[in-house]
Amino acid sequence: MGEFMDIHRSMKGVTQDQLAEAHQADLDIQDTEGVNFKKAWADPDSGMVFCLSEAPNADAVRRIHERAGHPADEVYEVPVQA
Amino acid sequence: MGEFMDIHRSMKGVTQDQLAEAHQADLDIQDTEGVNFKKAWADPDSGMVFCLSEAPNADAVRRIHERAGHPADEVYEVPVQA
Repeated sequence: MGEFMDIHRSMKGVTQDQLAEAHQADLDIQDTEGVNFKKAWADPDSGMVFCLSEAPNADAVRRIHERAGHPADEVYEVPVQA
Repeated sequence: MGEFMDIHRSMKGVTQDQLAEAHQADLDIQDTEGVNFKKAWADPDSGMVFCLSEAPNADAVRRIHERAGHPADEVYEVPVQA
């Protein structure tokens, strides 16, 4: 298991309710890939969304986001933290 | 005060010690701009670093990172969270 930060670049105007709904859609299916989405941060002005997760690998993160209907544009493993 | 996620794109190969040192350099001067750097996540393979902070505005975040010697490439306010 590692920690991952992924980025979505096209969620301009995202509201609190929409982000909560999108995050819940991940949570609903994340166990099927052994992923644990911990937190999401969004900037409605730019459309950037950052998601932090624990997962066996980056592809598992990608698959959950894809199946939940909001594929990630970038996924990075972030093993170094401070 | 708001919450901000900023990105550095050029820290390829960053080690745990180097990230801790860079983060500490922010912490040492952040009070001068009313910023609170809460966490940093790094991917040494891609060189991507993500920093989460509380700050009065994005420019305050930029100024601390610049003065600490590692200017941010992008800064986003992230008021929507899940």
